[in-house]
Amino acid sequence: MLETALYVDDLLVAEKFYTSLLGLQKHSIDPKRHLFYYCGSGMLLLFQVGATNHPGLVIGGGEIPAHGAVGPGHVAFRIWASEIELWRSRLATAGVPLETEIVWPQGGHSLYFRDPSGNSLELATPQLWGFPEA
Amino acid sequence: MLETALYVDDLLVAEKFYTSLLGLQKHSIDPKRHLFYYCGSGMLLLFQVGATNHPGLVIGGGEIPAHGAVGPGHVAFRIWASEIELWRSRLATAGVPLETEIVWPQGGHSLYFRDPSGNSLELATPQLWGFPEA
Repeated sequence: MLETALYVDDLLVAEKFYTSLLGLQKHSIDPKRHLFYYCGSGMLLLFQVGATNHPGLVIGGGEIPAHGAVGPGHVAFRIWASEIELWRSRLATAGVPLETEIVWPQGGHSLYFRDPSGNSLELATPQLWGFPEA
Repeated sequence: MLETALYVDDLLVAEKFYTSLLGLQKHSIDPKRHLFYYCGSGMLLLFQVGATNHPGLVIGGGEIPAHGAVGPGHVAFRIWASEIELWRSRLATAGVPLETEIVWPQGGHSLYFRDPSGNSLELATPQLWGFPEA
C-alpha cells in the first residue's frame, strides 16, 4: 500500500497523538483538511471528517476525487516481538487504555487501543499474517 | 502499515473486483464478514459494512475490538511509472471508469477509480510522496 487513510474529528489532537505517542514522522499538515505521516514504505493519511466529501482541488489536469468515511476505521502498525513490552508501557505512560491484547493461535501478537477519534489501532507482529519477523 | 482496512457492501462482488481487476493475492474470505488480501509487505482487509461494529470473537485471551466505518474510504496502491498505460487499458477493458488522472507538480502520477462499493482507489507512483521509484 502506498496510502492508508483514516478519518479523525480533530487534526490537532490527532497530531499530538500520532506524533508523540506513535512516533510517526510527519510529512505535512493542513489543519482544516489533512495530516500526513510517513509510515515505512508508505503514507498514513489522516483526514478531517467531512473535509474531503466533495470533489477537491484541480491539480495536474485532474480533480482530486471525493472520499470520506464516518465511524471507527482500523489500521495495524507493524512492530517487532521484542517491542511488545515497550509499547505496553508507552501506552500506559500516555494514559491510553489497552483495549485488548491477543496472542494469535497461528503466531503473532497484537495490542489494540483507540486514537482520540475512536479509530481502532493495532500494533502487531508480522507473524500474525505469516510474514517473517525480519 | 501491516493492515489497511476498507469497508464494502458485498464481499463476493468485491472479491471479483479485487482479485480479477487488481490481481491481488487472496489470503482468505468469510463471505459474511471479511475478505483479506496480501498486498506487498502488508495486508488489505476488506470488511462487510456492519459486520464488525460489535466486539468480536475471543481469541488468544482477548476480544477483537469493534470497528467499522461507513461511506467511501480511500487507499492508494503503489505502481511503477512504466505501468501507467497498462493500468489505463486494464481499467478500460474491465469497464471501470477512470475518475481522475493527476500528474502531480512535485512528481508522481495517479489514476483514480472506484471499487464496486464506491471506495476511492488510487494507483500511484511513489514519486508522489518523494519516494524513489525502486
